Amino acid sequence: MNALIISSDNFEDTELLVPYYRLKEEGVSVEVASARLGKLKGKHGYEVAIDRTLGEIDPAGYDLLFLPGGKAPEAVRREERALEIVRHFIDKGKPVFAICHGPQVLISAGVMKGRAATCYRSVAAELKEAGATYIDKEVVVDGNLVTSRQPSDLPALMKEMVRRIMGE
Amino acid sequence: MNALIISSDNFEDTELLVPYYRLKEEGVSVEVASARLGKLKGKHGYEVAIDRTLGEIDPAGYDLLFLPGGKAPEAVRREERALEIVRHFIDKGKPVFAICHGPQVLISAGVMKGRAATCYRSVAAELKEAGATYIDKEVVVDGNLVTSRQPSDLPALMKEMVRRIMGE
Repeated sequence: MNALIISSDNFEDTELLVPYYRLKEEGVSVEVASARLGKLKGKHGYEVAIDRTLGEIDPAGYDLLFLPGGKAPEAVRREERALEIVRHFIDKGKPVFAICHGPQVLISAGVMKGRAATCYRSVAAELKEAGATYIDKEVVVDGNLVTSRQPSDLPALMKEMVRRIMGE
Repeated sequence: MNALIISSDNFEDTELLVPYYRLKEEGVSVEVASARLGKLKGKHGYEVAIDRTLGEIDPAGYDLLFLPGGKAPEAVRREERALEIVRHFIDKGKPVFAICHGPQVLISAGVMKGRAATCYRSVAAELKEAGATYIDKEVVVDGNLVTSRQPSDLPALMKEMVRRIMGE
């Protein structure tokens, strides 16, 4: 199984590192993609090597997409290739996980209309405007789309993520 | 099941937060103890609420001890009550996990003689002087004592930690 994390500088460190380590614990191959090669630096200073540029990614080769929060989604949502990759996962019914500000990328990809989801509270208005039903809950599952609000939701989000990996 | 994390300021953020979230994912109750009440601040700025002082802790009420690394162990090893708690876990055969500089606390508690363990590379000499066999491996298991070297070992350490929780 291959997982893809798309992010940028100023990611919320735990929202990238916790799923990264959790996926590795399950023996899942994890790659981090961003607009350019090099390293990403988190809001708290953690550095993560970028495995591939967004342009190099063939999303057909990945089974799961994870979108961490922080300030990174503001940059990721402006990358058309990131939005195409998101639409591939949604259209193919492959699991997509987003936390905190991560759902901003889903909004820009135009995939939220009629979906139930959650996000960081400051993103809720934007989520509703995009046609989604906002639910204030630690994990909201709507088909292949799984969303959470904030770092303290990570245990519940990881539980759901691993349930998907094991079951599918 | 109740888990206890003992740490101090300047903990290595992921080495506290990753096991904290992972234990919660398994439904384990987790408490953070330190010399004084308030909040601990990690090397990367994450803040964690302290649930109890070391003086308040009755170690008989906990099933698992976790010692994160960073600069915190330098402070923790000077707290006699922390060392007494460590010796309780070791003597009772309850699982003790330590990563990076965390094993410094085990060294000061005087429990490393004849044990196999690992630690951050700069701590290796001190570990050997304490009578332990140092092994450069992501996870070293010696009975109830489980040690790791650094944050990148967290997936393997978490796998071993959860195996213990499930099996015992």
